[in-house]
Amino acid sequence: MANMYDSAYDLEKAIRNSEEFQGLKQAYETVMADEQAKKMFDDFRKTQIELQEKQMQGQEITEEEVEKARQVVELVQQHEQISNLMEQEQRLNVVINDVSRIITKPLEELYGDTEQ
Amino acid sequence: MANMYDSAYDLEKAIRNSEEFQGLKQAYETVMADEQAKKMFDDFRKTQIELQEKQMQGQEITEEEVEKARQVVELVQQHEQISNLMEQEQRLNVVINDVSRIITKPLEELYGDTEQ
Ligand SMILES: [Ca+2]
Ligand SMILES: [Ca+2]
Repeated sequence: MANMYDSAYDLEKAIRNSEEFQGLKQAYETVMADEQAKKMFDDFRKTQIELQEKQMQGQEITEEEVEKARQVVELVQQHEQISNLMEQEQRLNVVINDVSRIITKPLEELYGDTEQ
Repeated sequence: MANMYDSAYDLEKAIRNSEEFQGLKQAYETVMADEQAKKMFDDFRKTQIELQEKQMQGQEITEEEVEKARQVVELVQQHEQISNLMEQEQRLNVVINDVSRIITKPLEELYGDTEQ
């Protein structure tokens, strides 16, 4: 029976070598290597994080902020390399979510079962 | 090279068969089999979740609620089988956090590296 840590390191290697991760890595490095694209992407991320923090703290988000966020999203979506990066992120996210669901199944079964 | 899903299922099996998970399972089933212990544990969990939800929604927590929560915690800590269950949960949590840190390393390295 494989040890949990050994299995975790095997999974880490499998993620690192996966098509999905390698695709994301390449897309990310392409954007980061382009000064203008990098700035646009950083602005996008900053705007996203600011809005998320406000939401989490229950602060009101103004119409102006929603409009600004909408414009930033539109801008990055029109940028081929950034929109590719976002697609690659989505793609890896799907797999990571699957993986996460698989490995949390024992706990879910344990706590789910006795509640009925 | 192992596939991500195969590796994830291997890890799931390793978690399920681990001493930590089996210890938790046994502790959980022991508490659930005892009507009184089960009720005490359910009350404790309910109180915890209520307070967490209030905090997350930015609602004020009254002194009365803090005091009630404190009493519930004290009660479960004095219950041998429930406190054992909580210890087993902590124990598995440590391993799950380690595992989670291991498998998110590729992403952390990717996003961490280019920010410097
Ligand atoms: Ca049951
Ligand atoms: Ca760098």
